[in-house]
Amino acid sequence: MDELKLAESIIKEREIIDAAAGKIPADIVFRNAAFVNVFTQEMETADIAVKNGIFCGIGSYEGEKEIDASGKILLPGFVDAHLHLESTLLTPQEFVRAVLPHGTTTVVADPHEIANVMGTDGIRYMLQATEGLPVDVRFMISSCVPATMEDEAGAHLTWWETTPFYKNRRVLGLAEMMDYYGVVDGDDDILRKIRMAMENGRNVDGHAPGLTGKPLNAYIAAGVSTDHECYALEEAIEKLRRGMFILIREGTAAHNLEALMPLLKTRYADRCMFCTDDKHPNDILERGHIDNIIKAAIAEGARPGVVIKAASLNPARHYHIAHQGAIAPGYEADIVVIDSFESFHIEQVYKKGNLVFDGEVASVPEPVIEPTLIARSHDTFHLRTVTADDFRHSGSLPVIGLVSREIISSNEGMAETIDTDRDILKIAMAERHKNTGHIGLGFIKGYGLKFGAVATSIAHDAHNIIVVGTNEEDMAAAVNRVAEIKGGITVIDKGEVVAELPLEIAGLMTEKPIGVVNETLEAAKEAAHRLGVSYDIDPFMTLSFMSLTVIPTLRITTHGVYDTESQSYLTT
Amino acid sequence: MDELKLAESIIKEREIIDAAAGKIPADIVFRNAAFVNVFTQEMETADIAVKNGIFCGIGSYEGEKEIDASGKILLPGFVDAHLHLESTLLTPQEFVRAVLPHGTTTVVADPHEIANVMGTDGIRYMLQATEGLPVDVRFMISSCVPATMEDEAGAHLTWWETTPFYKNRRVLGLAEMMDYYGVVDGDDDILRKIRMAMENGRNVDGHAPGLTGKPLNAYIAAGVSTDHECYALEEAIEKLRRGMFILIREGTAAHNLEALMPLLKTRYADRCMFCTDDKHPNDILERGHIDNIIKAAIAEGARPGVVIKAASLNPARHYHIAHQGAIAPGYEADIVVIDSFESFHIEQVYKKGNLVFDGEVASVPEPVIEPTLIARSHDTFHLRTVTADDFRHSGSLPVIGLVSREIISSNEGMAETIDTDRDILKIAMAERHKNTGHIGLGFIKGYGLKFGAVATSIAHDAHNIIVVGTNEEDMAAAVNRVAEIKGGITVIDKGEVVAELPLEIAGLMTEKPIGVVNETLEAAKEAAHRLGVSYDIDPFMTLSFMSLTVIPTLRITTHGVYDTESQSYLTT
Repeated sequence: MDELKLAESIIKEREIIDAAAGKIPADIVFRNAAFVNVFTQEMETADIAVKNGIFCGIGSYEGEKEIDASGKILLPGFVDAHLHLESTLLTPQEFVRAVLPHGTTTVVADPHEIANVMGTDGIRYMLQATEGLPVDVRFMISSCVPATMEDEAGAHLTWWETTPFYKNRRVLGLAEMMDYYGVVDGDDDILRKIRMAMENGRNVDGHAPGLTGKPLNAYIAAGVSTDHECYALEEAIEKLRRGMFILIREGTAAHNLEALMPLLKTRYADRCMFCTDDKHPNDILERGHIDNIIKAAIAEGARPGVVIKAASLNPARHYHIAHQGAIAPGYEADIVVIDSFESFHIEQVYKKGNLVFDGEVASVPEPVIEPTLIARSHDTFHLRTVTADDFRHSGSLPVIGLVSREIISSNEGMAETIDTDRDILKIAMAERHKNTGHIGLGFIKGYGLKFGAVATSIAHDAHNIIVVGTNEEDMAAAVNRVAEIKGGITVIDKGEVVAELPLEIAGLMTEKPIGVVNETLEAAKEAAHRLGVSYDIDPFMTLSFMSLTVIPTLRITTHGVYDTESQSYLTT
Repeated sequence: MDELKLAESIIKEREIIDAAAGKIPADIVFRNAAFVNVFTQEMETADIAVKNGIFCGIGSYEGEKEIDASGKILLPGFVDAHLHLESTLLTPQEFVRAVLPHGTTTVVADPHEIANVMGTDGIRYMLQATEGLPVDVRFMISSCVPATMEDEAGAHLTWWETTPFYKNRRVLGLAEMMDYYGVVDGDDDILRKIRMAMENGRNVDGHAPGLTGKPLNAYIAAGVSTDHECYALEEAIEKLRRGMFILIREGTAAHNLEALMPLLKTRYADRCMFCTDDKHPNDILERGHIDNIIKAAIAEGARPGVVIKAASLNPARHYHIAHQGAIAPGYEADIVVIDSFESFHIEQVYKKGNLVFDGEVASVPEPVIEPTLIARSHDTFHLRTVTADDFRHSGSLPVIGLVSREIISSNEGMAETIDTDRDILKIAMAERHKNTGHIGLGFIKGYGLKFGAVATSIAHDAHNIIVVGTNEEDMAAAVNRVAEIKGGITVIDKGEVVAELPLEIAGLMTEKPIGVVNETLEAAKEAAHRLGVSYDIDPFMTLSFMSLTVIPTLRITTHGVYDTESQSYLTT
């Protein structure tokens, strides 16, 4: 530690101690405040004193600023234990503006999407883009880039590339280890990634839906300590008994609270936390964030003390986020002020003693990002201009069948031509990272488009350009347009842009505020629906998952249609 | 991490994963084993499989060695969360032999006593003397050396001397911060010691008997996270509510379980652990170690799952002892096999999968200690030969009054001469570290000695030579004898050694086995009693505390009799 910084920190520390001892006034005192004590899971009422951004004392205090907290309840700030910031389509700065009103003061982020586009530069971009924000953004380093061998991603992260990030104190470990077969099979790169996280005193997050019995033991024995993919109570209890922490997830697509609710009514709650994983802009605007899970859990009958602890101290302790997660001396003064547990109206939010939400979100500082990283993040499309001929084919191609309200797909045989009457549309995936010129072609059934084409650069997990069209000309125009605007979502008809959402940062995120993003996105969805996309389908999210080769049955890749059951490409 | 070590660790890891997955047999399988699951605090029954010293799986397994565990209960190894190894008078190697039969597999040690004698070399000695032992000895770095400004210790440890030890992975933090006034007053060296521990991701242990209210808030706000000095339940609950972990202590002198027992019957138990602090040889032999606390707590009605968790997972998590404290995949296979909770007979103990106790303690490896450190540890007495004249005085001296069965003392006025009829004996403290020639003189009342002199080099916390005598000739002989045998306890009559216990390592510990140490010590006590020391006094431990200037009222130092109330020396 730098000598001068040490000396300065000691001066600040001495002030905190003096304020705690009552020798000098605190900066802020919440008078007569009811608060949740997460150590005992009980309610207490006292003056809560803050000095230099730290809780210094609980008791009877005087402060420069005194706030009458009678009738209010103070909670420690909420922690989202696992999320992908990119899923919000927002910059981290804008994400912060969106979640502070919901009491989220710390998040544990996996920059998996941008890492698939920009590799370690993507992780560095996110680290810089989150530095000094009033939501404390911590990171787990993406473990599976690319997600599978079928992905033509922008990067391939090895153990010797993930390891140096542990020098950064905001990096808490290795992110969700999705390749559980790789772990159980003892893949060398995976085991080294895990080992180096543990050698650096860090955690390894899991992602193992349905894993049970001996393979689960193997996965845990390898060092994986959490899971956020439990859909059934029995599954969660087995994982918890074997030592895992269970992250109860309420995201836009995945809703696990209802099934896992019983955990919060037993001792098992001490091994639980909350996460959102993937939350879209409209979902944050309409339903909120971690507060939404807390409210639902309390409404379902869990004790507030238990629920608040799962949203604060549990993740802070597990992830070794020092001095967060409680209202107690020495802890960072992250505070959520609510009116009552019943209405759960968040009136104020403090981060390190600063009032950051009071009906309005306070000004959020602009993070400083290296110019070369900014330039690189805005220049991630490397593909030549495509033409309609690039999307033509001879003979027949496999047909991917959409399954209503699911992300799985079905195998619908082969087709020879686009036929909008039978809802047979052409789907393609254009490689866009390294100008390989690879374009995979196939057909898709069940999407409903009658005119034009729809394209998006959000295509899990490699984020190439996925396009569905009623004709090859519009497909080419859509792909070229996505590249032209440096990424995003576009809806094309007769060669013209009907609606679009530019995602100029790595093709995944935009600088625009959440309200604008949401309106633009909703308008684009409506435009797609007007061109024929069924109203029971999300026109873009559905496409984004059509490339995820770990989900059955057929998927589109840059090499064509892949059958996840036979683990092979279907050719004509 | 060294490349070759990494490669080897991956090979070992892959074997663990393969055994967990059932692809290869485990090394050991405990068949049909009932065990305490500390995550759920429930009992489970299953096969428990161990590979390469690590629990690989819980379920149904086959192993190279299979042990029928029907009817037995398996517990995770016990952790002593705070102790001073030196208090046992044993080498760490011999300490291990003494506590393995009691199921202790990990201890968190504060090498405070030897650090007062040898400074950082004392800490290095203990680190080396504990390397590779079948009890995992972790360290907190002594924070208060010397304990007070009145102590003429062998060393003065500053923040820049304590900090480098955090490079050692067995060092878990800064040891008990006894100088709580120093913390509350913002002492610069203390705050830097604390800051550097926290900067290195380590914990800071507390020691704050009776501290409450604002000073307690200040002490905790500074970063102190545990306390093992709670004598009353109310005190423990206040500390726990403010965020401290409570170490419930059962040592030779201090017995806190009875008062703190209610903690183990509530949710507060999650913030509790166990420690022995100071345990003498006869106490270990007669009553055991952490197992003694567990047995008593269960007998008093606490749930076994709760108690075992307090003895295992709670300290392992708090002190960041990775992969210890539970029977679960990936955890070190530290196992205590008992017959039942009622009789709690420990039949076997395993450390990292090795059987280390099975009625007999297995061979304990000899640690390798640098020759220079061994030489230094056996050469810590630096004082000239003393004569009877060194202990004579003119005029009057203060009289320290012993208080039966307490370590406090009373002020008994002044005296001019030794008077065995009135039980006025002479007491002296001879500096022995740096040959300063300082000898402090006074009188003591209530000790009972009628003939000869008693001296010991265990004199808290600076460990100079303390001597009580009926005449100055025997006092000189006793001090010279202690120096001659390189430290220890001696009983002298008419210039001759009547009984003695050499403590040749730093004047604090001996190489001899616990049985011999205990017999020799008990014989020496008996010899002291035969010379007149009251039977309701421990002849040596009582003297050892007469130099501790933080305990009221009068104390002997190398400068004379010190009054802890007026904080000044009493002079004639």
